Amino acid sequence: MQGLLEKTVQKISPINREAVEKAKERQDGLLKPPGSLGKLEDLSLKLAGIYGDPKPQVQKKAIVLMAADNGVYEEGYNSFPQEITKSLVELAGPGLIGVAVLSRHVDSKLVVVDIGIKGEVKGEHILPKKIRQGTANIAKGPAMSREEAIKAVETGIEVTNSLIDEGIGLLGTGEAGICNTTTTAAVISALTGIEPEQVVGMGTGGDEQAYQKKLQVVKDALALNKPNPKDPIDVLTKVGGLDIAGLVGCYLAAAARKKPIVIDGFIAGGAALCALKINPLVKDYMIPSHLSKEKGAQVLLDALDMEPMLLMNMRLGEGTGAALTFNIIDGACKIINEMGSFADLE
Amino acid sequence: MQGLLEKTVQKISPINREAVEKAKERQDGLLKPPGSLGKLEDLSLKLAGIYGDPKPQVQKKAIVLMAADNGVYEEGYNSFPQEITKSLVELAGPGLIGVAVLSRHVDSKLVVVDIGIKGEVKGEHILPKKIRQGTANIAKGPAMSREEAIKAVETGIEVTNSLIDEGIGLLGTGEAGICNTTTTAAVISALTGIEPEQVVGMGTGGDEQAYQKKLQVVKDALALNKPNPKDPIDVLTKVGGLDIAGLVGCYLAAAARKKPIVIDGFIAGGAALCALKINPLVKDYMIPSHLSKEKGAQVLLDALDMEPMLLMNMRLGEGTGAALTFNIIDGACKIINEMGSFADLE
Repeated sequence: MQGLLEKTVQKISPINREAVEKAKERQDGLLKPPGSLGKLEDLSLKLAGIYGDPKPQVQKKAIVLMAADNGVYEEGYNSFPQEITKSLVELAGPGLIGVAVLSRHVDSKLVVVDIGIKGEVKGEHILPKKIRQGTANIAKGPAMSREEAIKAVETGIEVTNSLIDEGIGLLGTGEAGICNTTTTAAVISALTGIEPEQVVGMGTGGDEQAYQKKLQVVKDALALNKPNPKDPIDVLTKVGGLDIAGLVGCYLAAAARKKPIVIDGFIAGGAALCALKINPLVKDYMIPSHLSKEKGAQVLLDALDMEPMLLMNMRLGEGTGAALTFNIIDGACKIINEMGSFADLE
Repeated sequence: MQGLLEKTVQKISPINREAVEKAKERQDGLLKPPGSLGKLEDLSLKLAGIYGDPKPQVQKKAIVLMAADNGVYEEGYNSFPQEITKSLVELAGPGLIGVAVLSRHVDSKLVVVDIGIKGEVKGEHILPKKIRQGTANIAKGPAMSREEAIKAVETGIEVTNSLIDEGIGLLGTGEAGICNTTTTAAVISALTGIEPEQVVGMGTGGDEQAYQKKLQVVKDALALNKPNPKDPIDVLTKVGGLDIAGLVGCYLAAAARKKPIVIDGFIAGGAALCALKINPLVKDYMIPSHLSKEKGAQVLLDALDMEPMLLMNMRLGEGTGAALTFNIIDGACKIINEMGSFADLE
C-alpha cells in the first residue's frame, strides 16, 4: 500500500514555465530598466510559475512552527533548561514569542505543532500531533524508528494540506526545540559529507567547552548511527529530530499543492536540504529568507545553492526570518501587478 | 546672518544614551537568547535613542523623492531619453512607478519634489521647488552656483521639517534623475579620494563604450572643477546634483528634529556621505537599507561604515530599497514592545 509520503512525493511536478514567460514579458515592460528590481522581479516570476498565474496575487499566509524535544539534551552541553521548548510554544498562544509578534506584524497565521515535545503541553492554540515524548539521544543510538520518522514527515504533510485546504497560499517554516542545531548539523553533515566542524555552531549560546562537546556529540552520532546519505528518511531516523522531519513534510506538501514555502534559518534550511534530496523539484517552490548568524548557515545556503534576501544577524529560529520575508514577497506581487508599463508613457 | 542650513546643522545633537540603555535592558530580558534577533535588536535600540523612548513606537512614514536633471546628460553616454526623469515623477501621481507601489505597500506617504527637473512638470502631487532647469554639465564646469547648492540643501530641510510638523516620524530617501549615478560617483570620489574606477558603475544600463565614456566624464569633471574635499557644499556645487543636495538637507533636518531616516541606494548613499561630512552626528539618525547592485555600492557602504539589511540585487533607486526597509523597522518596534520576557515564564 502506498502511504501519504509516497503519494505526496509523486504528486510534485514542475512549475508552469509558460506563466513564467508571460510574467517575464510583463516584468520587462514595466517602468524601469529591465532587471533593476532584482530579486523582486525574480520572486514575481517564481510565484507566477508556482501559481500558474502571470500576475501572481498576494495570498493568505501561515507559518508552521514544528516543536519537539531532542534526547541528545542529556549530553549536558546546552545550558538552557529543556523545558524552554514547552514554555516557548505555550507562550505563542498569548503572542509573546518572537515569531508570534512578527507573524502578526506581517498578517500571517501562526500554526504551532507539538510534534514531539517532552511532557504535557497546554494551550488551545497548539496542534497536538505528538509522535513521541522527544527523540532518543543520537549520541547513544538512533533518534527514532523509521516508522516514527515517516509519521513525522506525514504529519507535516497533513498540517500543510489542511492549511492549503482552508485557503492559505503562502507558507513559512519555523521550529522550536532545545538542541535542534545539533541534530540539524548532524543531518546536513550526513546528507552532504560536509565536516561537522563546518556546520556545528553555538546555537542558543555557550562557551568553548560546550561547543567542543557539541561537536564531539555530532561526530559520535554520525560514527555510531551511520546514516545512509542516499536515504534522507534514514538520516532523519538516525540523527534527525521530529521538528526537522515535520518540516520536511511541509516542503513536500507545499510543492505537491503548488504553493511557495519560505525557508527560515539554519534548522528549517536543514529540513529543506532533506526535502530536496527526496525530490529536487521541490526547490522551485522554496523561497530563501535570511542568512542566519548560526555558524553553518552560509555553508548550508551554498549546499542549497540559494542566496538570502535578508542580512539581519538573526539566529532565533521559530520562523522569524520567514515572517520578515513575507512582506518582501507581497511587495514582489504588487510590483508586477501595480506598476505601470512604458506603454503608459505614450 | 545665519541661514537655515547653519541653524539646522548646529541643532543636531547626540541621541539619548539613557533611553538606549533602558531599551537594552528590556531587549535582553525578552524571551530569546540575548542578541539572537540581531539587527532587529540593534534597530530597536537605535530608535529608542533617536526618539528618547525606551519603547519606540511604530511611526507615520514618508519617502522623499528628490527629482532633478543633470547637465552632464549632454555628454551622450546615457541611452535613456532625459525626459524619463519628468515622466517618472509625473507617473508617481497615479501610483505607477516602483516606489509608488512599494510605499503604498508599506503604508508610507510618497513626497515627490521637483528640485530641478528640466522643463515643465505636471501633477498636483509634485512639490514645485525647482531651483533651476537642471544643472550645468560638470564635464564643462561647475554643476551650479554655491548659492544654488545651499538653496537645494535648504529645500530638503524645509520639505523634511514640514513633514515632521505634520506628524511623520520615520523618513526614507529616494531620487530620480537621468545621469545621477554619474554625479554621485563624482561626489563620492571627491569626498573620499576613492578612484572613479571603483565608484562609476553602469547606472541604468549601457555598453562598455558608454561605461568608458562615463568614467572619463567623472575623471574630467573632478580634474576640471577641483572640488574641495573638506567643503561638502563645494563638492555639491562643482560635481553634484540638485537631487543629491536636496537629500543632504533631508538627512540634516531629520537628525536636527530627531527622526530616523533610511538611506536608499547608491545616490541616496552618496548624499548620506555628504551629510556626514557636514556633521558626523547625523550617522546615529541614519538607517541603511539594501546593498544596491550598482557597482560602487559596497565601496560606498564601507565608506559609510554601514552594513545593509537587504540583499535584493536592486538598482532602481527612487526610494524602493528604503520602502522595503520600513517594514523591518516596524517589526523591530513591535519586537521590543510586544514580546514577552523571561519573567512571564515564572
